[in-house]
Amino acid sequence: MKKLINAPEHVVKEALAGMADAHPDLITVHYDPDFIVRADSPIKGKVGVISGGGSGHEPMHGGFVGKGMLDAACPGAVFTSPVPDQMLAATKAVDGGKGVLHIVKNYTGDLMNFEMAAELAAAEGIEVATVVTNDDVAVKDSTWTAGRRGVGVTVLLEKIAGAAAEAGADLAEVKRIAEKVNAQGRSMGAALTSCTIPHVGRPSFELPDDEIEIGVGIHGEPGRRRIKMVGAAEITALLTEPILEDLPFSGGDRVLAFVNGLGGTPLIELYVVYNELAKILKGRGITISRTLIGSYITSLDMAGCSITLLKLDAELTKLWDAPVHTPALRWGV
Amino acid sequence: MKKLINAPEHVVKEALAGMADAHPDLITVHYDPDFIVRADSPIKGKVGVISGGGSGHEPMHGGFVGKGMLDAACPGAVFTSPVPDQMLAATKAVDGGKGVLHIVKNYTGDLMNFEMAAELAAAEGIEVATVVTNDDVAVKDSTWTAGRRGVGVTVLLEKIAGAAAEAGADLAEVKRIAEKVNAQGRSMGAALTSCTIPHVGRPSFELPDDEIEIGVGIHGEPGRRRIKMVGAAEITALLTEPILEDLPFSGGDRVLAFVNGLGGTPLIELYVVYNELAKILKGRGITISRTLIGSYITSLDMAGCSITLLKLDAELTKLWDAPVHTPALRWGV
Repeated sequence: MKKLINAPEHVVKEALAGMADAHPDLITVHYDPDFIVRADSPIKGKVGVISGGGSGHEPMHGGFVGKGMLDAACPGAVFTSPVPDQMLAATKAVDGGKGVLHIVKNYTGDLMNFEMAAELAAAEGIEVATVVTNDDVAVKDSTWTAGRRGVGVTVLLEKIAGAAAEAGADLAEVKRIAEKVNAQGRSMGAALTSCTIPHVGRPSFELPDDEIEIGVGIHGEPGRRRIKMVGAAEITALLTEPILEDLPFSGGDRVLAFVNGLGGTPLIELYVVYNELAKILKGRGITISRTLIGSYITSLDMAGCSITLLKLDAELTKLWDAPVHTPALRWGV
Repeated sequence: MKKLINAPEHVVKEALAGMADAHPDLITVHYDPDFIVRADSPIKGKVGVISGGGSGHEPMHGGFVGKGMLDAACPGAVFTSPVPDQMLAATKAVDGGKGVLHIVKNYTGDLMNFEMAAELAAAEGIEVATVVTNDDVAVKDSTWTAGRRGVGVTVLLEKIAGAAAEAGADLAEVKRIAEKVNAQGRSMGAALTSCTIPHVGRPSFELPDDEIEIGVGIHGEPGRRRIKMVGAAEITALLTEPILEDLPFSGGDRVLAFVNGLGGTPLIELYVVYNELAKILKGRGITISRTLIGSYITSLDMAGCSITLLKLDAELTKLWDAPVHTPALRWGV
């Protein structure tokens, strides 16, 4: 294993320290329990929006803390749910008196620990609502989930729900919008290589030199099937068709097209995939009205990509376009 | 070789087509000769700023075309200089009557072809000035260069010179500022793995599983030496010390610290490196006043990073902070 790290057990804390030093205008990092909050938290009268999950998916979630997106993020160890103490501390830190939304990716550990934190927060008088993302169409149940996994839609949801909260929406309204994003978005990914967890030191799964995994999860969970390596056009079609059929998306729809790198794939390849995706959607009469292309929800050093499509209407488009200023996403400010 | 591509010989054109489709508000792509221009080019009365070089370093340079940065970029084949026809066509396309600055990384082919394009443009009555970046302190001469290679400083220079041109500076002034950035910036990189050029299909060089290359170039050119794999703290020190000694940087300096991924390295590792860099600079009394952390000048799928430090003064800081809106860098708008 060759990684730019020191002791594997210190990766998360050291990356957090780097983030804190690099972005003091945007975020503050608290330790033990670990969480990242907006430097200007809590904001009185604003709904707090928090998320969290295992580390190894950077910039998600800590890179999305800031104006117009998350108020706090709780990083667990690599591929390991954060503990309820983290979410409780973050919830209290961002509570501005209007309640707090928990954005939870559908994995068993995350669900359980966020639920416990929500109960503890409620016991302290903080109103908490929860939205669970489960946008991965690849498999019905998976290694770490009952039901579909939460993947790329989480990034879009954090931006859009964060914008709603920033604009002054109340907790019920922020939750409604968040649920709408999850309902209107679908994703699927493909792995060209495994990832390597630092404290394990060897690839999480074996993938022969001429095979790829279609429908992989962001922790390297098995997908739909392994196939012999094929070109970008075919891989893109294998990811896009199930997404389109599932919602379904249809002619006349306007979508946000999100082509995401899994950590070890360079941008030039993501644009090749995007080009194939655009051709497929054009052929179906679907209009791409917004795009996001880059590595925003990753799986350590895994080579591969995921595709997320989100059906846009005027409300979601306006919230997507609203100003955001975080370490990883910024516009309008 | 597993990459998200179709035929290797079509990678660059297909990625360009993807960029054109994804960012029609920002850029327009012309083919044969290939170049990317700002959608609102030419801008009358504004100095044009263009760059170019071999592909495989994305988002550089095409991802930096837009308001406040480049007016055009000329992509060659992977790791191959663009030809003079491209730079000539781009120069003519962005000429607003105030002249055009060519930003050229110091590689023999780029220098020669940009020089020829400048002569052809001059013959057509367009005033052209040229700045050459040569910030890589690793080696004096290299495989493809006489003198030092141009690397990370190029990204910062394109932003800062682009801001000066956007603000209305004349050609001599934009050139002066660009030369100042090159003079005040230094870089060095380390490879954990080789990259693989699509049409070659095998790694460009052999690097054993337990060795890294200190001082590598962005095409995989040899650096200072190979060493056994060590931790992020030691790698960061091995890159930073030569940078600090070379300019030199000293206590009291304010710098922009740029930690760059080479294409196959995830963000969590870049923050671990940044954390080490921040400790080293703090120990020297050097203040990090601006940061850029991410993959902005890459070497296809190479795992590794580079560090660039740029000494900032009030003039450069103001130009760095100025609004920019390109596919890869955006703020203030």
